[in-house]
Amino acid sequence: MDNRINSNSKNHLIIGGVDATELVKQYQTPLYVMDESAIRHKCQMLIKRFKHPQVNTEVIYAAKAFLTLQMAKLINEEGLSMDVVSGGELYTAIKGEFPPSRIYFHGNNKSHEEIEMAIQNHVGTIVCDNGDEVTRLLKHSWDGRLRIMLRINPGIEAHTHEYIKTTTHDSKFGLSIYDPKTMDLIKTIHDNPRLDFVGFHTHIGSQIFESESFMELARTVLSYIQALKIKHGILTKEMNLGGGFGVRYTQEDTPFSLADFFPKLLNLIVEESKRLNVDIPKVLIEPGRSIVAEAGYTLYTISGTKETFGGKRFVFIDGSMADHIRTALYQATYEAVIANDLKRPLSQDYTVTGKACESGDIIIKNIKLPKPLEGDILAVLSTGAYHYSMSSNYNRLLKPAVIFVSGGKSRVVVQRESYDDLLRHDV
Amino acid sequence: MDNRINSNSKNHLIIGGVDATELVKQYQTPLYVMDESAIRHKCQMLIKRFKHPQVNTEVIYAAKAFLTLQMAKLINEEGLSMDVVSGGELYTAIKGEFPPSRIYFHGNNKSHEEIEMAIQNHVGTIVCDNGDEVTRLLKHSWDGRLRIMLRINPGIEAHTHEYIKTTTHDSKFGLSIYDPKTMDLIKTIHDNPRLDFVGFHTHIGSQIFESESFMELARTVLSYIQALKIKHGILTKEMNLGGGFGVRYTQEDTPFSLADFFPKLLNLIVEESKRLNVDIPKVLIEPGRSIVAEAGYTLYTISGTKETFGGKRFVFIDGSMADHIRTALYQATYEAVIANDLKRPLSQDYTVTGKACESGDIIIKNIKLPKPLEGDILAVLSTGAYHYSMSSNYNRLLKPAVIFVSGGKSRVVVQRESYDDLLRHDV
Repeated sequence: MDNRINSNSKNHLIIGGVDATELVKQYQTPLYVMDESAIRHKCQMLIKRFKHPQVNTEVIYAAKAFLTLQMAKLINEEGLSMDVVSGGELYTAIKGEFPPSRIYFHGNNKSHEEIEMAIQNHVGTIVCDNGDEVTRLLKHSWDGRLRIMLRINPGIEAHTHEYIKTTTHDSKFGLSIYDPKTMDLIKTIHDNPRLDFVGFHTHIGSQIFESESFMELARTVLSYIQALKIKHGILTKEMNLGGGFGVRYTQEDTPFSLADFFPKLLNLIVEESKRLNVDIPKVLIEPGRSIVAEAGYTLYTISGTKETFGGKRFVFIDGSMADHIRTALYQATYEAVIANDLKRPLSQDYTVTGKACESGDIIIKNIKLPKPLEGDILAVLSTGAYHYSMSSNYNRLLKPAVIFVSGGKSRVVVQRESYDDLLRHDV
Repeated sequence: MDNRINSNSKNHLIIGGVDATELVKQYQTPLYVMDESAIRHKCQMLIKRFKHPQVNTEVIYAAKAFLTLQMAKLINEEGLSMDVVSGGELYTAIKGEFPPSRIYFHGNNKSHEEIEMAIQNHVGTIVCDNGDEVTRLLKHSWDGRLRIMLRINPGIEAHTHEYIKTTTHDSKFGLSIYDPKTMDLIKTIHDNPRLDFVGFHTHIGSQIFESESFMELARTVLSYIQALKIKHGILTKEMNLGGGFGVRYTQEDTPFSLADFFPKLLNLIVEESKRLNVDIPKVLIEPGRSIVAEAGYTLYTISGTKETFGGKRFVFIDGSMADHIRTALYQATYEAVIANDLKRPLSQDYTVTGKACESGDIIIKNIKLPKPLEGDILAVLSTGAYHYSMSSNYNRLLKPAVIFVSGGKSRVVVQRESYDDLLRHDV
C-alpha cells in the first residue's frame, strides 16, 4: 500500500481526486502537480500533534522547499508560521499576504538590503547566524525591540539512520555551543536594549529517519539553556529544533511517524526542563520537505525507449535535469509509475533520462518499470520539495507549470514558461 | 603567468580593459562578466587554425555552454556555425538573427513541436540520435531534401587524461558502430529520397586534456566510413568530431594547444582517408566550453569570513550555488582572486560559500586566498561556460546580470532579475 498511488476504474493515477491523464490533456507535460489536500492534511496534523498542555509550540514552514504566492496563502490559512532564507522568499511571502509577524528570517549571510527589507516589513523574528550578522543588523534602525534568535551548532550531526556527536563542526551555519565565545555573544545580544533575545535555532540535518536524533538535540539544547542560566542568569524563552524529518522517496525510506513522535519529544522537554531547573521553553519546529515532498508528482510524456548495444535500457521523457536536479546533484532516488496504466505488469530495469544534452541528465537510475510505450505518462513520485524551487533553464528548457489539485479540481499556481520568457532580460 | 588575470596600476583586476571594481560600481554583484574580446579571439583562432588545403572544415559553437541574443550575434559575426539542443536554444538563435542554414539541431529526444520548429525555420542540419527519431522526423513535411547527420557512438570514451575503447556503451546518445543494425539504419536514411544523409556526429567526452583521444576518434570514424562504403557503397560527406576540448579552471588543468593540434588532426584525416581509400570528408568540430569558459568571471562581494570552532574557515559571498552549481554538481574546481587587491599576499585556505541555506552551497572548496575583508570583490575565474546557462532561482535568489566587456567598454547582455520576476508566472 503506497498512499501516494491512488487509481480509478481506468487504472489511471488519481491525484487530489483528478485523473492524471486529464491533467496532462489540460496542462501538457512536463507538469508539477501538488496534491493540495495532502499538503493541508499534513499541516493540520502538525498543528494538531505538535501540542502539549505544558508547552507552547509553533510550527514553521521552511519555505525553501517550495514557495509560490498560493503556497504562502495556504500556509497562512493552515496557521503555520514561515521561515524564509532570502529577500526573494521574504518578498514572495509578503506579496502572498503572509503575516510578517509570523515570519522567521534565516540565512548565514543576510545583506544590508535584506535586513532593511525585513525591518521595513516588520518581520517577526530575525535568526542571526553569527556575531558579524548581529553587528550588521545593529547598523540599521527600528522602533522598539527586535526579536532575535541565534543559530547555534549543538554538535549533533544527524544522518539518515544515525547521529554523531562532535564538539567541532565544519558547517557554515551557526556558532558552536562548545565555543566559549558563543555564550559571550549571547550575553551581548541579551544586554542590548534594542534586541529581544528569545532563544536558539538549530538544524541538524536532512532526511532524518531516526527520531532519537531529535531527542538528543532537545536534551543538548536544554543543557545549554541551563548553562546559560547558570553563567549569565539569562532565561531562554524559545527553542527552535529545526527540520530535517525524513520523507519517503522510495520504498527503502522509512520515515517515523511525527504524530506519534511529537508527544514523546514534548514530554521529554517538559521532564528535562524540570530536571535542569529551567523554564520550559516554547518549542518550534521547521518542517519543509516533510510537508510538501510526498504531495508532489512530476508528470512527463514518454517519447520512447532505447537499448544501447551494451544492453542498457533508457526511457526518454520530455523533461530533464533542469526540472529535476536532485538525482544528478545528490544521487537522490525516486520511484515512478505509468500514470495511464497502473496495472501494467512490471517488466525490466530502465534508466529514466530526459532531453538535456548531458550524460548526467538522469531522473531515475535503474528502476523496474512496466514496458514503457510512446505517449505513456510517467509520474515521478515525491517531487514536491526542491523540484520547482531548484528548477533552471539549462539547455534553455522551459520551467513546467505548477498545478494544485484537491477535491477533484485543479488550478494553476505557477504558469508554464514560454520561449519568450527565456529572452525577457536579453538585450 | 595566468592570462585570465590582468591588472592595472591600482592592482585591480582588469577584464576586457575595464577595472572590475568599476564594473561592480556600475552593475552591482553578483555579476557574470564575459570578456567579449577573448571570446572573439578564440573564435578567430578556431576559424583560422581549423583549416587545411585539402579538407573542408566547419567550426560549430555548442550553444548550451552559454547562449543569449548577443552571443548568437557574436557567433554569427565571427563566422561560426551553431549547435542547438532544444527548442529554446533554437528560438534564441533565430531571434538573435542567426542564419538557420548554419544551425545543427542536436538532442537525444526531440519533440514533434521542436522538429516542426526546426523545419519551419529551415534549420540546416538535423542530427538524429537514433532510428526512432528518424521515424518521428519523417512524419513531418518539408520541401526538398533535409540534411541529416546520425549520431554514432564510436566506442571511445575520453576522460581527462586518457581514453578507453569499448564496444559496449551505456550512453543515452547515439548508436554504436559495433551494432550491425546501425549500418542498416544508415542505409535506410541514405535511401530515403526526402533525406540527405551527409555523415556522422560524435562526441566522446568533456574536459579532455589528451589530444590523442581525438586522433583515435578520427581514425575510428574513418574506418567506419570505409566499412560503410564497402558494405553499402555509401559515401560519407561529413564527419563531426564534436567538442570536449579541455579548459583551464585551475592551474592543475593543462589544456593542449588547439592551434597546434588542429593541423596534426587534419593531416591525419587526409592521410588516413587516402590509406582507407575514402573521400576526405568535410570535418566539423563543436567547441562550446573552450570558447567561453576562460572568458568568464563571476564577481561577488565578500560580506565576511567565519572560522568554525573546528577550525574551518569560510568566506561568505553574495552569490550561491544558484548562480554557480558546478562545484556542488560535479565537484568542479575553481580559482579566485581578490579583484580589488591583486597584490595582497596569500594567507590561508578558505572555503568560499554563498547565501544558500544548504551545506552543499560551496563555490570553491579549500582555496588559498589573501585574507578577505568585508567589501572585497571576489572574482571567480573561468565561469563563462555552464554558469549563466545552469543558473536557477533556488532559495528564490535572483539571477545575476551578464555583462560583455571589450576594449575598455562594458555593456549589459542580460539584465539582472528583480524580485517581481520571481512572481511573474505566479497566480
